[in-house]
Amino acid sequence: MKNYNVAVYGTGSMGTGIISLILEKSSLNLVGVISKRKEREGIDVGEILDGRKTGVLISNSLDKIFEKKVDVFLHATSSRVSDIYPEIVPILKNRINVITIAEEMSYPWVANKKLSESIDELARENGVSILGTGVNPGFVLDTLIITLTGVMKKIDKIYAKRVNDLSPYGPTVMKTQGVGTTLNEFDEGIKNGTIVGHFGFPESINMIADALNWKVDNVIETREPIVSNVLRKTKYVEVKPGMVAGCRHIAKGIIDGYEKIILEHPQQILPELEGVETGDYIKIDGDPQINFVNKPEIAGGIATISIAVNMTPLVYDAKPGLITMKDLPIPRFLK
Amino acid sequence: MKNYNVAVYGTGSMGTGIISLILEKSSLNLVGVISKRKEREGIDVGEILDGRKTGVLISNSLDKIFEKKVDVFLHATSSRVSDIYPEIVPILKNRINVITIAEEMSYPWVANKKLSESIDELARENGVSILGTGVNPGFVLDTLIITLTGVMKKIDKIYAKRVNDLSPYGPTVMKTQGVGTTLNEFDEGIKNGTIVGHFGFPESINMIADALNWKVDNVIETREPIVSNVLRKTKYVEVKPGMVAGCRHIAKGIIDGYEKIILEHPQQILPELEGVETGDYIKIDGDPQINFVNKPEIAGGIATISIAVNMTPLVYDAKPGLITMKDLPIPRFLK
Repeated sequence: MKNYNVAVYGTGSMGTGIISLILEKSSLNLVGVISKRKEREGIDVGEILDGRKTGVLISNSLDKIFEKKVDVFLHATSSRVSDIYPEIVPILKNRINVITIAEEMSYPWVANKKLSESIDELARENGVSILGTGVNPGFVLDTLIITLTGVMKKIDKIYAKRVNDLSPYGPTVMKTQGVGTTLNEFDEGIKNGTIVGHFGFPESINMIADALNWKVDNVIETREPIVSNVLRKTKYVEVKPGMVAGCRHIAKGIIDGYEKIILEHPQQILPELEGVETGDYIKIDGDPQINFVNKPEIAGGIATISIAVNMTPLVYDAKPGLITMKDLPIPRFLK
Repeated sequence: MKNYNVAVYGTGSMGTGIISLILEKSSLNLVGVISKRKEREGIDVGEILDGRKTGVLISNSLDKIFEKKVDVFLHATSSRVSDIYPEIVPILKNRINVITIAEEMSYPWVANKKLSESIDELARENGVSILGTGVNPGFVLDTLIITLTGVMKKIDKIYAKRVNDLSPYGPTVMKTQGVGTTLNEFDEGIKNGTIVGHFGFPESINMIADALNWKVDNVIETREPIVSNVLRKTKYVEVKPGMVAGCRHIAKGIIDGYEKIILEHPQQILPELEGVETGDYIKIDGDPQINFVNKPEIAGGIATISIAVNMTPLVYDAKPGLITMKDLPIPRFLK
């Protein structure tokens, strides 16, 4: 039995992943797909997957979808609150719940307080809820850390690190992480904002701190080049020794003058060539001591797709408003 | 500012741990303590802690506490639904929320469906909620597993193990785990029910399965002796080579004919003497693969005390009724 009618906004790699997963879920019924690409208007969504017929047509406009009963809209277009705001407003106004993987939306007050308040108000007025989620921000370096503090008597310091391998990714990711640059090019890229590192540290740190009732004085972020000592080569990029294999992005949440939350996400290609194991590491100093390690790291793309889809029933049942992972029942796999 | 008035039922090792922790919490105000021990009637609760004056007197009767405004009662007396039922009924009738560490209460329908329904009804009628929690059942082998499935696209099998060291515990735990017995005595103890192994596997398995919408055909439990190859000695017990150092308790949740959930809890003294590392291990086969390891294991006593206390605001805010960890927002440290 299909329990929820869902629609998807976005047909990029994340959007198509979400669509494929929805089609596998016995509890979900795909009722519509929105794409901004003109050439996709009117085609069966199966054509951008594996060619099968699904009977669900892609549309450039929301209007047709609003004629149907939609319980939850899954949204996957871009990262910033300000960019997605005009896309989600009509959905909320049509009283449809939203799950978005826009990174800033995981804790949107950090990036844009004013629009967040407006989204919250709009969602409440229309009796629906809207959640930002994903693997990170959204799970590994925030939700999971908060959950682990639940068994603690005393917390001195939180230190967590996610070490991944970017080699499956294409040219866009290589550019935003500075893979294949010289040291000078890396410095230049950091200065002009083309090399950005990880997206979501201030969101994760503020979510953790708010959950623990800690007040964040400020968040200090650093982005360093990971200089390769060996030749690293993927389909899309070649990194010679002395060149940059990725970006080590570190964020420190300063609380009461102390570095209480330190999150680290070195993103590079082929770290194992220099003996670095990928993995998720959560160390919480305190009582009891927590020292969780997951090797290799939870695969990012599939985990973001999965958590977005899996959260459907919890978002549908949630109190109206702009909500975050810390407000909802523990996440879980959806059949 | 004290945000919640709390009372404690039980002054054993867990109860006193809970009382001590409440006194440390800036958000909690201890308003009363119930003990069944006659000799504790009327004494300051500080006398059973470190001797300080707290101004909170221990009582044998609930009546005095009911004269005060109590938001949440923390309950720590015994393990079974049927044993604690008469203790919690008057609390619920007085419209006070309850958090109990009784193992069966973590998912009480498994052990006692009828009393669970009665508790649920009573809680709803009185507009309060009641939760069973603890480190295990309640966190490591259920809540945390469910949470990790939230990022998964596909689950083939769940295998989790908690390896701990019983050496801090006293004679009662040694007996229930068969530590220091011969093989014959161990077999006899299993048969006559004096050696019980872990308390809570059916609860954890059913909580996981219900969260994932899996139907449990049955739960198969085995309890095997951990025979020591070396001399193991604690303050309370001596285990010679060939004798039993503990109980390897395994539970398998059979779902659609397959062993889909396997939980293992070998409890023994000094496992490291034979090269066995204590730890929490959660392996979920599927996509993405999950392979979490926490070494050493989350210390059990302090974690149970902490999670019971930390859940106070979430239980206070919860919908009325009998609730479980899977129904509540993600746990978190309480200031």
